[in-house]
Amino acid sequence: MFQLHPQLEKDSLPVCSLGLSRVLLANDARWPWIILVPERPGLVEITDLDEPDYARLMKEIRGATTAMQDLFAAHKMNVAALGNMVPQLHLHVIARTREDAAWPRPVWGVGEAVPYDAAAATARIAQIRDRLKGL
Amino acid sequence: MFQLHPQLEKDSLPVCSLGLSRVLLANDARWPWIILVPERPGLVEITDLDEPDYARLMKEIRGATTAMQDLFAAHKMNVAALGNMVPQLHLHVIARTREDAAWPRPVWGVGEAVPYDAAAATARIAQIRDRLKGL
Repeated sequence: MFQLHPQLEKDSLPVCSLGLSRVLLANDARWPWIILVPERPGLVEITDLDEPDYARLMKEIRGATTAMQDLFAAHKMNVAALGNMVPQLHLHVIARTREDAAWPRPVWGVGEAVPYDAAAATARIAQIRDRLKGL
Repeated sequence: MFQLHPQLEKDSLPVCSLGLSRVLLANDARWPWIILVPERPGLVEITDLDEPDYARLMKEIRGATTAMQDLFAAHKMNVAALGNMVPQLHLHVIARTREDAAWPRPVWGVGEAVPYDAAAATARIAQIRDRLKGL
C-alpha cells in the first residue's frame, strides 16, 4: 500500500492526483513549486518504476512542467529527482524567475521556508489544480 | 546546427553519444557525475523536445541512471534539469554516496571543482563509456 512519507506530508499541501502521481504544493511561498509522488509503494529511484509507469511518470512531468511554466511565467524550470533527505521517490517541478529568492542557485537548503497563509494556499492550489485538470 | 555551450565544454570531458544525447563527464572528481545534452539546436526546457525526442531522452536518462548507479554503488541517484546558469538543455545524472563531499545536500555550488588528473579521467571515461555501450 502506498503511503506518503511523513516528511513530504509535513512540508507540503495536497493539490490533486494525475493518475500515477500525487501532486503536492511545497509549502514555501518563495517559489511556485510542486512535487510529484508516484503512488506506488517502495519506490526510491526513477529506475525502480517498471517501463509503463516510467513512461507515464515522464508524461506527467512533461505536462506538469508546461503547466507550471505557463502559469508562473517562469524564466527557467527546474525539474529534479534528488531524495537525499527523503528516500521516497518524488520529483520536484519548480518555476524559477531571475528575481526569485535563490536565483541562480538551486532552491534546496536556501534559508527557511515561508509557509503560505491560508488564503494564498487555497488560491494557489486551485490555480494549479485547475491547470493540471487536462493532463 | 547543434553546438555544445562553451561553459559545458569547459567544465566537462567528452564520453560518448547515445543517439540523441551527447554524454559528458563533469570534470569534478568529487562525484561520479555525467551530463546528457540532447544534440538538437535551441533547446532550453525538457518541454522543448518534440514527443519522440522527449521519449528518447527519458529512455537515455533511465539507462544512464541505472549505469551510474551500478558502476559507482550509489546510495542515491540525483537526476536533474536545472539550467539556471547555462541555458542549453542538459541533464545531470549524479551518483551520490552518504560519504561524499556534499551529502545530503545537492552538489551544485559546493566548494571548488576538483579536476581529474589525466589518468583518472581516462580510466573513468572508459569505464562509463563501456557501461553505456549497450544503451
